[in-house]
Amino acid sequence: MDEFAPRVELPCPFEKIFPSLLVRNDDFYMKLAYNHAIDAWKIDEVPVGAIIEHNGEVIGAAHNLVDSSRDATAHAEILAITQASSAIGDWRLNECRLYVTKEPCPMCSGAAIMARLGEVVYATPDPKMGCLGGATSVHEIPTLNHRVKVRSGILEAECTQLLQAYFQMKRMKEN
Amino acid sequence: MDEFAPRVELPCPFEKIFPSLLVRNDDFYMKLAYNHAIDAWKIDEVPVGAIIEHNGEVIGAAHNLVDSSRDATAHAEILAITQASSAIGDWRLNECRLYVTKEPCPMCSGAAIMARLGEVVYATPDPKMGCLGGATSVHEIPTLNHRVKVRSGILEAECTQLLQAYFQMKRMKEN
Repeated sequence: MDEFAPRVELPCPFEKIFPSLLVRNDDFYMKLAYNHAIDAWKIDEVPVGAIIEHNGEVIGAAHNLVDSSRDATAHAEILAITQASSAIGDWRLNECRLYVTKEPCPMCSGAAIMARLGEVVYATPDPKMGCLGGATSVHEIPTLNHRVKVRSGILEAECTQLLQAYFQMKRMKEN
Repeated sequence: MDEFAPRVELPCPFEKIFPSLLVRNDDFYMKLAYNHAIDAWKIDEVPVGAIIEHNGEVIGAAHNLVDSSRDATAHAEILAITQASSAIGDWRLNECRLYVTKEPCPMCSGAAIMARLGEVVYATPDPKMGCLGGATSVHEIPTLNHRVKVRSGILEAECTQLLQAYFQMKRMKEN
């Protein structure tokens, strides 16, 4: 198999959402993250999308690419942090906010702290793997040198449905 | 300033160690990681180095590059995981062992889990930021889908001295 051959597009029954560009609120950014999650589904990646916002502008936008890149570090959040850092020329993202469709895993929860993100907003909680309030709360470790604010629940129903439908589809294919 | 200009080399008072290639034990791999940490110092990065071993071969070798790349995700461990995954063509590193000169931070501790590393061996403990037994133990979260083994203390005195001397030098420059 050609390693760099384009992958067949996987049909996704969910439609992208196109919010008004005039209202830049939590809902707006999370909808953009949701659209990236749909793009992940279409190349058969677990549908998680991430957006990084800075002064009302999007400076990072990515989806999960673990299987395509064969690299466990290619989560949406890590890729978006690298983009955002490149955009502002600094690894410190104190003035930035990360929107992500699923509660970050141990790695990405830690990356939010190490990148000194101002805030993380996630849609779907993950009580098994999530580390910003789910399985544990790494952001509350008292000795850390940075405090990241955490909120959740924005566009939760839509992002949860997307994830559940993807895993259901995968299970049906396996049987 | 030219963003891509080579950075002035910072003198490092520590010498690299060249272990015998015939004895491939913990000490061997950690000495290679230590040498990468010295390379980090020489470009004024926090001196942390990482090696990933697979069947006795080194398939990942990196040092911290956060300041040079202006990217908080450019820790030695993350870079080495990406290299190792590329080398074996799989994001799952179950048969691999990571050697790192300092206990991994929240992000890198999580990355070890997400990359399904077989084992992590670190030199210097980090009770403030370390998440494999130091500030917390993310690898012991019961709901995780992968168990990574953790050991520590290999070449601890040398790696600790290197880190302490670096931070001491930085503090002196600040004053």
